[in-house]
Parts: sequence; C-alpha cells; structure tokens
Amino acid sequence: MAYFSKHYHDPGTAPGTLVAPQGGRPVKLHLIDYSDDHVEEVSLTNAADCRTYLERDSKTWVQVNGQADPETLRNLGDLFDLHDLALEDVLNTGQRPKFELYDDQLFLIAAMPLFDGETLDIVQISLFVGHNYLICLCPLDEDPFEPVRKRLRQPGSRRFASRQIDYLLYALVDLIIDSAFPVLEQFGYQLEDMESKLLENPRQQILARIHGLKRELLVLRRVLWPQREVLTSLMRTDDPLLSADTQVYFRDCHDHSVQIIELLESFREMATSMLDIYLSSISQRTNETMRVLTIIATIFIPLTFVVGVYGMNFHNPDSPWAMPELGWYFGYPLVWGLMIVITAGLLWFFKRRGWM
Amino acid sequence: MAYFSKHYHDPGTAPGTLVAPQGGRPVKLHLIDYSDDHVEEVSLTNAADCRTYLERDSKTWVQVNGQADPETLRNLGDLFDLHDLALEDVLNTGQRPKFELYDDQLFLIAAMPLFDGETLDIVQISLFVGHNYLICLCPLDEDPFEPVRKRLRQPGSRRFASRQIDYLLYALVDLIIDSAFPVLEQFGYQLEDMESKLLENPRQQILARIHGLKRELLVLRRVLWPQREVLTSLMRTDDPLLSADTQVYFRDCHDHSVQIIELLESFREMATSMLDIYLSSISQRTNETMRVLTIIATIFIPLTFVVGVYGMNFHNPDSPWAMPELGWYFGYPLVWGLMIVITAGLLWFFKRRGWM
Amino acid sequence: MAYFSKHYHDPGTAPGTLVAPQGGRPVKLHLIDYSDDHVEEVSLTNAADCRTYLERDSKTWVQVNGQADPETLRNLGDLFDLHDLALEDVLNTGQRPKFELYDDQLFLIAAMPLFDGETLDIVQISLFVGHNYLICLCPLDEDPFEPVRKRLRQPGSRRFASRQIDYLLYALVDLIIDSAFPVLEQFGYQLEDMESKLLENPRQQILARIHGLKRELLVLRRVLWPQREVLTSLMRTDDPLLSADTQVYFRDCHDHSVQIIELLESFREMATSMLDIYLSSISQRTNETMRVLTIIATIFIPLTFVVGVYGMNFHNPDSPWAMPELGWYFGYPLVWGLMIVITAGLLWFFKRRGWM
Amino acid sequence: MAYFSKHYHDPGTAPGTLVAPQGGRPVKLHLIDYSDDHVEEVSLTNAADCRTYLERDSKTWVQVNGQADPETLRNLGDLFDLHDLALEDVLNTGQRPKFELYDDQLFLIAAMPLFDGETLDIVQISLFVGHNYLICLCPLDEDPFEPVRKRLRQPGSRRFASRQIDYLLYALVDLIIDSAFPVLEQFGYQLEDMESKLLENPRQQILARIHGLKRELLVLRRVLWPQREVLTSLMRTDDPLLSADTQVYFRDCHDHSVQIIELLESFREMATSMLDIYLSSISQRTNETMRVLTIIATIFIPLTFVVGVYGMNFHNPDSPWAMPELGWYFGYPLVWGLMIVITAGLLWFFKRRGWM
Amino acid sequence: MAYFSKHYHDPGTAPGTLVAPQGGRPVKLHLIDYSDDHVEEVSLTNAADCRTYLERDSKTWVQVNGQADPETLRNLGDLFDLHDLALEDVLNTGQRPKFELYDDQLFLIAAMPLFDGETLDIVQISLFVGHNYLICLCPLDEDPFEPVRKRLRQPGSRRFASRQIDYLLYALVDLIIDSAFPVLEQFGYQLEDMESKLLENPRQQILARIHGLKRELLVLRRVLWPQREVLTSLMRTDDPLLSADTQVYFRDCHDHSVQIIELLESFREMATSMLDIYLSSISQRTNETMRVLTIIATIFIPLTFVVGVYGMNFHNPDSPWAMPELGWYFGYPLVWGLMIVITAGLLWFFKRRGWM
Repeated sequence: MAYFSKHYHDPGTAPGTLVAPQGGRPVKLHLIDYSDDHVEEVSLTNAADCRTYLERDSKTWVQVNGQADPETLRNLGDLFDLHDLALEDVLNTGQRPKFELYDDQLFLIAAMPLFDGETLDIVQISLFVGHNYLICLCPLDEDPFEPVRKRLRQPGSRRFASRQIDYLLYALVDLIIDSAFPVLEQFGYQLEDMESKLLENPRQQILARIHGLKRELLVLRRVLWPQREVLTSLMRTDDPLLSADTQVYFRDCHDHSVQIIELLESFREMATSMLDIYLSSISQRTNETMRVLTIIATIFIPLTFVVGVYGMNFHNPDSPWAMPELGWYFGYPLVWGLMIVITAGLLWFFKRRGWM
Repeated sequence: MAYFSKHYHDPGTAPGTLVAPQGGRPVKLHLIDYSDDHVEEVSLTNAADCRTYLERDSKTWVQVNGQADPETLRNLGDLFDLHDLALEDVLNTGQRPKFELYDDQLFLIAAMPLFDGETLDIVQISLFVGHNYLICLCPLDEDPFEPVRKRLRQPGSRRFASRQIDYLLYALVDLIIDSAFPVLEQFGYQLEDMESKLLENPRQQILARIHGLKRELLVLRRVLWPQREVLTSLMRTDDPLLSADTQVYFRDCHDHSVQIIELLESFREMATSMLDIYLSSISQRTNETMRVLTIIATIFIPLTFVVGVYGMNFHNPDSPWAMPELGWYFGYPLVWGLMIVITAGLLWFFKRRGWM
Repeated sequence: MAYFSKHYHDPGTAPGTLVAPQGGRPVKLHLIDYSDDHVEEVSLTNAADCRTYLERDSKTWVQVNGQADPETLRNLGDLFDLHDLALEDVLNTGQRPKFELYDDQLFLIAAMPLFDGETLDIVQISLFVGHNYLICLCPLDEDPFEPVRKRLRQPGSRRFASRQIDYLLYALVDLIIDSAFPVLEQFGYQLEDMESKLLENPRQQILARIHGLKRELLVLRRVLWPQREVLTSLMRTDDPLLSADTQVYFRDCHDHSVQIIELLESFREMATSMLDIYLSSISQRTNETMRVLTIIATIFIPLTFVVGVYGMNFHNPDSPWAMPELGWYFGYPLVWGLMIVITAGLLWFFKRRGWM
Repeated sequence: MAYFSKHYHDPGTAPGTLVAPQGGRPVKLHLIDYSDDHVEEVSLTNAADCRTYLERDSKTWVQVNGQADPETLRNLGDLFDLHDLALEDVLNTGQRPKFELYDDQLFLIAAMPLFDGETLDIVQISLFVGHNYLICLCPLDEDPFEPVRKRLRQPGSRRFASRQIDYLLYALVDLIIDSAFPVLEQFGYQLEDMESKLLENPRQQILARIHGLKRELLVLRRVLWPQREVLTSLMRTDDPLLSADTQVYFRDCHDHSVQIIELLESFREMATSMLDIYLSSISQRTNETMRVLTIIATIFIPLTFVVGVYGMNFHNPDSPWAMPELGWYFGYPLVWGLMIVITAGLLWFFKRRGWM
Repeated sequence: MAYFSKHYHDPGTAPGTLVAPQGGRPVKLHLIDYSDDHVEEVSLTNAADCRTYLERDSKTWVQVNGQADPETLRNLGDLFDLHDLALEDVLNTGQRPKFELYDDQLFLIAAMPLFDGETLDIVQISLFVGHNYLICLCPLDEDPFEPVRKRLRQPGSRRFASRQIDYLLYALVDLIIDSAFPVLEQFGYQLEDMESKLLENPRQQILARIHGLKRELLVLRRVLWPQREVLTSLMRTDDPLLSADTQVYFRDCHDHSVQIIELLESFREMATSMLDIYLSSISQRTNETMRVLTIIATIFIPLTFVVGVYGMNFHNPDSPWAMPELGWYFGYPLVWGLMIVITAGLLWFFKRRGWM
C-alpha cells in the first residue's frame, strides 16, 4: 500500500471541478423503492430515471457502484440538488470520513476497511440522505450491502421498512463500522503469530512484517478516528432527518466505534513493544554467540601458545638453557598436565561467571 | 489470552439479534426478595417466575449465572421490558463497560478482572436496575457476590435492606471495582520479582514475562478506563433511580477506580522501563564478554607470534643471518623475558583503560 | 535548511519598526481590478497608484511580489490604514500563520510549502482584506497564484467575479493549503524508497536521510498546525467581511488542512519507526557477522592447537614418553581423523543451535 | 519500597468497616485550644475528652499521632459527626490525596513525602475541618507540625491566632506541600551525581540506581498530581469554611504545588534520557573494546601465518621447490622485512579509518 | 547548571517571611519619572525617597537592580502597599512566571533567559504595576532594559511617554520575551553543529553535549510555558490597569511566546532524535569493526591451520603415512596453491555477502 493514497486536484483548481480519474469503470445504478407494504428493485441505466421514484411517497435507496464518472455525478447532483464540494469529495476518493449538514440533506463520507489477509484496503463510501431518499456511492464493482437488502426483502421486515429513511442509513453505517471487527480479528491473529515466532527465533522477515502491520494500523487509525466523530455527530445532531429513535441505534454504533479504536490502539502499542523485544532478542543472541566464541577462544589460545613454545628450535648444544624441557624424561606428559590445569582453571572461571 | 476476544455478529446483522454462543452452559436463576423486615431467597427454573415478586412492594434481586441463552434473555426482556440492544450486549460478551439510561431503567456493563496468578480473565457483569428490582447477569457458573448476600442476610443489616435498590447496585459495583486491587497487588509482586531477577541475571524468559505482563496491563487498562467513566456517570447522573445519599458512596467507588487506574499506569511505565533495563543489561554483558575475550586474545596473540618466529626452520649453515638467536647461549630465557615484558606491558595498558 | 530561520529585531526595539532585510530585491506591484463585467490588470511602480482603483466600486487585488522594502510597506500602510505590528510581521518573515481581525480589515499570515525534491522551503504569504480590496504579499519574485488569475480572466468566470472579495481570499488560501499535497506526496515516495532500501541494505546514508526527512516534517508541522487554527477562525468568525456562503468553502479548506496534518503525523511516526528498524537491522547484521566469525574461529582454533601439539620438539630418545605418537605407523592419518571428528562435532553443535 | 502499598478491605466488605491494621501502635492525642488571647496545650488519653473544648468559642486543634485504632476513630466520629467513608479512608492509608465537602465539614487527605537519602516514604495526613475545630491524623509517632505549633505559641502570633480556623489548615497544608522541596532537592543532587558518573564510567549499579529513582519519582508523581487538584479545590471552593483571605494563601500553595510537579516531570525526563545515555555509553565501550581487539588481532594474525609458513618441514633434498627460502643467505631478515611491511601497511589502514 | 535551583524556606515557615539570601550584594535604585513633556532620571539610596515622585501626576518607573535585601523590600512594600506573599516571591528567586491581580495592582514574575554560549541562566524579573508607577526588580547588577530607557529618552518618543503605564510594562515584557530568540538561535547553531559531527564521527563528547542541550532546553521550557500563560492573562484580563490599546501589543508578545515554545519543542525533538542516531551510528561502527576483524580472521585462521599441519614432526621413516607430502617434489608449491584457493574462495564468499 502506498503511503500517500489521496486523489487531489492541482492546487488552484476551481472548487467543485469534476475530473474523471484514470481507469474509471462504468458505474452500475441500482434502485430500491420500499415502504411498509412493498419493496421494488430496479437496475437503472441513467441517473435521471430516479425521478419517477422520487416523486412517490415511498422511500428510495439509490445505490451507485463502481468508480463514479463526472457525468453521472452531475446528473445526480442536478436531480437531488447535491452541493458541488460534496460531489468533488465523492470523486476524489481517499477523503477522511466526515459528516456535513446541508439545508435539507445530510452528506456523509465513511471508510470501510477490507482485508484479504495480505493487503488492507480502505473503501470510501459516500452517502446522501434526504427526507425520503438515500444515495449511496461505493467505488467497488460489487457493494457489500447485500445483507441489508436481504433484511429489507424479508417478508417480516415491517419494522425496518416502516421506519424513517434514517434507519436505512443506520443499517448501512452499522455494517460499515462492524466490518472493522473481522479486520482487527485477523490483525490480532497475526500479532499472536508474530509474538510466538519472535521469542523463539527472531528473524529479519518478522521485522518487516511488524513494520508492515504498524503501517496498516496507522492507515486504519487515520480513518477510524474521524469516523468516530462522524458517529458522535449522528448521535447528537438535532435535525428532523435524524429521529431520536434511530439515534439510540447510532449510540450503539458509536460504542462499537470506540471499542474498535481502543483495540486498534492496544494493537499499535503491542506492535511497538514487539520491536523492542526483537531488538532485545537480537542483542541476546549476539551475546550468546559471543559467549561461545569467547569460551572456545579463551581456552585454546593459551594452549596454542604453550604448544608453540615447544615448537621453537633453540638448539645450542652447549647451553643448559636451550629448552632443557624438551629433553626431560617426562617433558611431554608434563606439558599435557600443564594444559589440562589451564583448561580446568578457565572452565572453573567461566562456570563462576555463569557463562556455561 | 487472545489479543482479540470480543464476540461480534457478522457485519450487517439486524440489531438486537440474539444468537447463542457456542458451548453455552445452562443458566441458574437465583432470586432474593428483601425489605427491611424480611429476606427471601429462591432458586428459579424459569425467568417468568419472577413475576409474582415483581408485583410486591419489596426489592427484588434477580441473579442470572452462567452463559445466558437467547430464550432466557427474551423472557427476561419481555417481563422487565429490556431494550433489544442491551440484550444483545449481554450476549456478546467482551463489551466495554458502559452506562445507559433508558426511560425508567438503568443499564450497566461492568468488567471484573480475575487473576489466578497465571492468566487474567475479564468477566463481563451486566446490570439492569428498575425502581424496585435489580437484574445481574454473570457468565460465571458461580457468581462472586456471596459477600453481599451475606451482608444482606445478617440480622442487623437494616441499614442495607431499608435503603433504595440503588444501594444494592452500589454494593455490587463496589465489589466489582475493588476486585482489581488483589489483581494489581499480584502484578506488583510479579514486577518486584522480575526487577530483582532482571538486574542479577537477565534471561530471555524474563523478556517474555515482561512482555506478557505489559499485554495483560493493556487488556486491563482497556476495560478500567471506560469503567471510570461509568462511575462518573453514576456519581453525577440526576435521576430518581439514583439517590443523592447513594451517590456519595459512588463517589468513593470513583476514587478507588481512579486510584486503580493510576496504579495501573505506573505499572505499565515500570514494565516499559524494565525493557530498557533488560536491553542495557544485555549490552553490558556483551561488553563484559568482549572484554574478557579481548584481554585474553590481546595477550596471547603476540606471544604466539613470538614463539612462532622461533619455530621457523631457517638453516643455511653458512649464513650468520639464519636465526642466530636460536644458537645463543641465553636465547631461550631471553625469549621468555621478552614475552614477560610484553605481557606486563599489555596488563598495564588494560589496567589504565579500566578494563581489569 | 537552518534550524532557526526566523527574522527578528534586537530585543527592546520599538514595535512596528521596519528595517529592510539584507539582500532585498526590488518589489513588483501588480494590480487586478475586477467586477462581474470587467477585469483589468496593471503593473504599478508606486504603491500610491492604487488609490484611484480603491475609490471605485469594483474589487481590487493588489499583489506585491519580492522582498518588500520598508518604504513600499509604509506607503501601503498609509493608503490602506494597515496596523504597525502587521507590517512588522510582513517584513520579519518566518512568522507562524495567524489570523487577526482589525476594525474593518482582516490580516492573515499563511505558510506555503515548496519542495523541489531536495530542500523544503516555507514561503510566508501575507494577506490583508478590506471590504473591496485584497493585498497579497509574497516574498518570491514570481508568485504562485497564476491559476487563480487564469480563472478570473476566463470569460465565463462570472460566478467568481460577482462574489464578495472573500471568495478571492478563499481561492488564494485554498491554493496555499493544497500546495502541501504534492509536497507530502513526494515525502511519501521518499519514505517508500527508504523503507525498501532499509530492509535490504541498511547504510549510514539512509540514516542521514531519515533524520533529514524527520527534520523537514517537523518544520512543516510547525507551520501547518497554526494554519489549521487560521482556517478554523476563517470558518467560524462572524464578521461582515466573511459571508456564510464563502465559509462553506473555508470548511472544505479546513478539511483538507486536517487531512494534511494527519498524513504528516503518520509520516512522522513511520520515520520514527524506521529509525528503530535501522537499529534492529544493524544489530541483526552484527549478529550475522559474529556468527560467521564464531563458526570459522571455533572450528579452526582447536585444529590449530592439535597441529601445534605435533609441532613440538620433545626429543629425548631415551624416554618412551617423548611424543611417541610422532613415531607411530598411522600417527599422521590418526591426527587427521581426530581433526575430522572435532570438526564434525562442532558442525553438529552449530546446526543444533540453528547457526548454520 | 513495594510497588503496591495500598491497604484495602476484601472486595465486598461493607463501606465504613473499620478494621485495625496489623502492628498498630497506641495513638497519642494532643489538643491545642487557642484564640487571639490564649493558647492552651493538653495531652489527652481519650477522644471523648475533647468535648469540653469543643463547646467553647475558641479554636481547637486535635492532633492524633500514630496508627489510629478503630475505637479512637469511632469515638472521634461520634463526637465530631465524621462520615463513615472518611473514617475508612483514614484507616486504609495509601489513599490518593482528595478533598471532600460534607455538610458543615471539610475532609482532606494529603500526602507528605519523606526521604532519608535512601528510601522515600509517603505519609498520609488526614484533616477534618469544622467551623471551630481541626482534626489532624498522622500515622507517624512524631508529627512534623512542630514549626506550626511554635509559630502559634509565639507571643506575637496574634495575626495567626485571630484568623479563622482555615488559616491553621493553610499552615498545615503549606508545610505538607513544601516538604516536597527538600526531597526534590536531594533527588536533584542524586541525578547530578549519576550524570557525572554515567559519562565517565557506566556501570551496572548506576543502571539500578536510575531505575530506582525513576520508580520513586513515579510514586511521588502519583500523589502529587491529585494533591494539586486538592489545592485547586481549596483555592476555588465557595464555602463559609474557607474565607477569601485565606484562599489567597492557598493560591500561593497551589503555585508551589505546580512548581513541584514541573520539577518532578523534568527529573523524570532526565532520568529517562540517562537510560539512553547509559545504553549509548555501553555501546560505545563495546565498540572501543572491539577496536582494540581488531587492531591487535588484525596485525598479529597475518604475522603468525607468515612465521607458520617457515615452520613447515618440507625437506625433499632433491627438490629445488622445497622451501628454498629457508636456505637463502638473507632469508631470515627478509621475512622480518616482510612482516614489518605488513604491520606498517595495516597501521596505515587503521589510521586512515580513524581507528587509532 | 544545577537540576534544582529554587530558593525555598524551610517547610513550616510563616508566609511572607523575608530572609536575606547568602552573598547578597547591595541593591541599586534607579528612578525614572516621565510624562509626555519631561523625563527625569535619579539614582536613589533609600526606597523611601520614591515618595515625592509617587505623589506627582507623572508616571514613575522604579528600577531595583541587584539581589534585593529584606529591608529595601519591606520599605518598598510599605510605601507601595505590596502583598507579603509577593515580596517573598521576589526574594526566593527561581519562581515560575506568574501573573497576579491584587486590588489595584498587578504583580508579575517573568523569566529572562541569558546564554553566553556555555551556560544558560534564567533571571527572574519581578514587576509591580499600579496606576501611575511600575516597580521592576532584577537580581543582576546591570539590568538589561537600557534599550527601553533609550527609547524613552528620545526627544520624539511622545507616543511612548503619553501612553498609560501599561505600555511601559509591555515594553519591558516584550524585551524579556524576545530575549529568548537569540538564545534559541544559538541553540539552533549548536544543534546543526552537533548534527554534522554526529554523522561524520560519533564520539562520547557529543553525547554529553546533546544531553546537556536537552537539559537546558528542559530548563528553558519549564519557564517558557508558564510565561505564555502570563501573556494570555495580560492579553485577556479585563482591568482598568490594562488598556485595550496595549492589549493588542500583548497579543503580539503572546504570538512571539508561542513561536518560541514551538521552536523549543522542535529542538527538543531533534535532540532526542540525535540520541537515536548516535546509538545507530555506534552500532554501525561496531558492525564495521566486526566486519574487518571477521574478514581478516576468517582468511588467516584456516591458512595458519594449514601451515601448522606441515609443521608437525611425524617422522617414522618406515611408514609411508608419515606426512609423505613433506617429501613430495612439488609439495611446497602445492600448499601455496591450496592456500591461494582457500583465500580466493573466502574472498568470493565475502563479496557475495556484500561485506567488501
């Protein structure tokens, strides 16, 4: 994942400028119109086709999947009277989650983490809510909201369908928030895995993995903190679009959000602590390696000196000082005895130091 | 203990969905009905049996022990009019402590730490309080509230029994809060133990223990901070269910809670400091090992060279330059003298450097 | 870049003292007068020439490029009634961004980061806004606001030209804020580059680069935090000079500003984490080097001792103890066998330890 | 000092339970009754004897020294109408400093640090203040308030004696707060001492001392922060028991308290910084040790090889290739020349690397 | 500089006790009386001589230089009605900056940093301001306010002289605040100097210097943070002694103060980062030293073994196994060939590892 992953216009570009990002795929529009006595699902080809549903009394959920193109956005903007700056934010993905209150409309950006075990992806979900419609824009080809649609389609879902449109907003936001749980669960398993490996056998690869995990936690944190603020606003804002009944549910979402952040922070702390342990383990290993070397070297270096002494060639036959030991009857065994004494002394010294 | 220990539904599940967790054991219901002139204890088999006690004027404490099953919860929910989201929280243990104020009911989640010297366990206690009843749900088979029951049963407990039901709430919460003291006391002993071992003899196992302790402190911290907020709410909330008299007692609880958190934070800091000391100790030991090696090697390497010189076989009998030392009368003692001088010089050098 | 880059007067100098900084280049004055039906651009030689435009009903943008000299400032000050302290701040560049509200004037200092891939430069932009004029002072020879002028000159720019002067202020501030994006993008690439090099091949130069990057992030942070506060003020201040319509745009700017700061903070954290990884990598490498040394030395030191033994010259022909091995029939092959056994034993020991 | 030093009841004990701590020594009661025209000092044996003084119009200071026993406390409690929870706090020493406002009584717990150069002791002082009495409980056998009594006894102490009882409270609290100054002064000397030793000669013992100091600073911090809050309350609480005149003096105390905390925090930071320096110093020393070893080994290892070469016994008399150097006229001096060249080359290499 | 540099009374001393510090030098009193039409400067010997000037309508600046003695303070205190606690603070230097509002008097303690390139000195300046007088106490023999006097004496200084006395206060405070700029500038140069040395050649002395700098930054920080609060109070306090006009100037001071603190914090952060870099550099160097040793040792140790083999004295003339190589025709060149092959192999190995 890149460190810098935000789309932005060149500084100085007029606000609200909509430029198609590269590699945009065609969007798919999906409309669900529901009230307590019917649920109708249609696939649209043109944003303007929403108009007929808008005029009805029922609630309308417009789901736009795929990389939105400027034209579709402009059509939606005209139809639903969306603010220029909001549309620009939809297009320039990588925004931080936010909640804006326009005259008779809510605008929300949420971030949904997806983790496939290898790479973490943050998907920007943009939501507009009016008094009887909700527009949800998701840059993925397949949106993740199928469970909500399923609940809506269930025959006995009257409780869901008869509530205000903000309950649909809650259902979507709840799904987005809760999707951080499985991601954190996986991170938790990775941490445990690293931890056990770390203490057994510290290797360079683990270092890279810990660093990578820290980075992903950092990226996740960057979106989850503002997301919490969004939920605080949803929970507290006093606006006819948000009923007190639903705000109790948003309070529950907020609780989840706080718990997710606390987990995240404790994971970050453990990852940092692991770096320290890695460093300590390496130092510990170096120390052990050193100890082995020191023991071996310290024992054999003096012995090698001793045998070196009796390899000298002093030979003056007239001198009684010319290495007389070499001619002694027990000279050779005596040297071995000397060497055994030296070795024993050194081993005793190492034992006492606690090195063996 | 696992890093991630929260139960959660699949993202997108409807709020208030109650799914039985795996391995649930049958719950035990225990009811205590008391007023200033009687105490009655009954074991119930069905949640619906509480009804008769509810209608009386006396105070009723319903204690539910064991992993609650959806059915029992639904029965309790119908009888006492408990909120869906609250019941979901009871079932999905691993919640962060919280305090919610419903219309004429308090809902409280508290976390009780249990430590058997090896593993730390965080038990979620859920409490509902109405104007004349208290429901306490504890996932353990044996709840830890026996001391409170004992006080209630005492003949002279009029002060307890005659107070409002919130005093019972206080008694339970006080027990939950104070149960962190023995846990921290044990952690304190462990820290002292590690500390003394650390400075004497730093080993890899201590590193793992410090890391483990940090992790447990982190887990404990994650529940104790929100617990403090819960107490702040209990102390300050203005609601007929909480009398001013009892709030003085909650203020005392809050004080304990703050003191526990401060202890915890200082333990965390000391554990971090110990990691640094471990690292320093290892470095120190490596340095000492190095010093021994350096001293031994530095003394013997030159000596070995010297004796190597006189082991060479230059033998041209015509050359006066062919190792004449070997033929000298005092050649051998002179070499020994040279070697003693070299050794003395090196020892002097090491002394001056402070290495010996 | 220097650590301390602020211009300041000697302590005790009277406030509002204007002293020309060294090496000041001549300023260039550029005036744009516009309303919804005309755009007029003039180059001025004297600040006093603005007067005629000021008296008109249209909006006037006075752009002063280059290191402002005291005289020009004093002229502008007299003409537009600018506060002494504000003029001093314009001259003593290196100010922290700030927003001041004078009687019927706004004064703003903004900081614009410029990064050429090598060195980071923070340019101080000073802005005065009155009810129908805006003065912008930029110490560069060429100001960076050409894109705004271009938008203004476009025939269809009625929306821009017909708005209050605060919209021009927004356009300039927006450009200044957004110019941090490309800078951070480049820092992001540098971080990725360092990161990949770090794990492959830690070298001293990378250390210097990480340190340098941390320093630049620190410098950038020092100006971006107060800049955010400036935007908060612009967004919230209730003053006729700032219309509610434009404040919606400033809210967008503020969002960008927050996002920039969050990116910056996460970059800082990653840079710090990289220092740890560098340290760990070096320790790891030292450990590997040590391991190679230990293996080689531990194998050959005992062997060298063995061959040293049989290099000794014990020769008493009468003694059966005088190195009889030397005369054995299979003596030499036996020594080789001994040495092979020793080597094999040591290799087995290293394998078991996981060192090979 | 133990990490965990708080006395606590078993969780679930009734609030206000008074249990005598082990090893309690008998308390000593000392009463001072004063007004602007008299000072009377009495030693009491029974708490009930205070009653006669209470009824008078004069001010009464009851000083209870030694580990308070439950009976004395209960007597005092009955006589002065003290709250159960407060009495429990007096008994369970190790409380965090706090300030509680009961109906017509102040209750205060303060922490007084005592340092004898070796161990830090935190003494809990409990204070009750009513409209004409002050009760001070100190677990020491000799209380530290003699200087205050001395001032009170002085003939010219009218200013003191004529003021409200809160001025006596101020005098005691002031003494408690200021007693942190000599403790911090001693810590400051210790830090300076460690610092100078650290850079000269880093040893394991200093590590233990720094760690110990950090721990004591942490303990001190744990009581001084809440003590500051107590002073903020004393300074700001609007209650007839605290006159505005005396609150000016408490403001001064608060200033001292803040200064003490700032000193403490900077000491903590310096202690942490010293750990880093210790680590760096050890690394530095290891590096130096290594350098010496490397220089010696690198010089002599090749030389030893060279002399080893000419110790070989190739002897085929028919072969001109059988070590002809050994028979050369200048063979031996040439080998010395070769060895001198090698040594010089290596020394030059080390010089260039800056290792010598 | 000492870690603990505060003067304090023995705990329990009565508030307002004035004790002469040791080594007090005689004070010098200097009085400047000015209004918009005159400036009069007098040297006084006795504090009581101020009285005549006090009664006039003009503004009076009493400057007291040198270590104030209790008598002078008491005289000033009587004459100007100064509070006991304030006088005690003047005497016990080392106070933290503060701002107190007495009935019709301001009392201010400011801290002025002085740095001579070697040691940092914090001078406590005490200021009392009444409606037509200002008393400034400075423990130095020569006060640093000459530039202000110079501005006051200038014939054209009407703007200064005609303003209220709070403008004089501003002039003095401004000078005190701004005197931190040159100090920080010098610290900045030192940081740059250390940084360049650090990467080239890390030495123990730099470690001591970085540590010393951190300590001085910490000391500076301890006074600059409360100084900022003092300025916030001066800027915001609503009191007739502080005119709105002058408060605009204090706002400017406050800006400087904030900028100074931000610089300081970033310097502290860079100093901390340098400690990390020092540690990394040392590790890097150890690694390099190790590499050289490993290369040399690894090459020569096997070679020395080889030549040791052929130095053995197996000599059984009957055995064909007794070191037949020694008698081979090409034995000696073959051994050289073997050694060259070993060396080449090892060099290739080191190359591949990237060690050469």
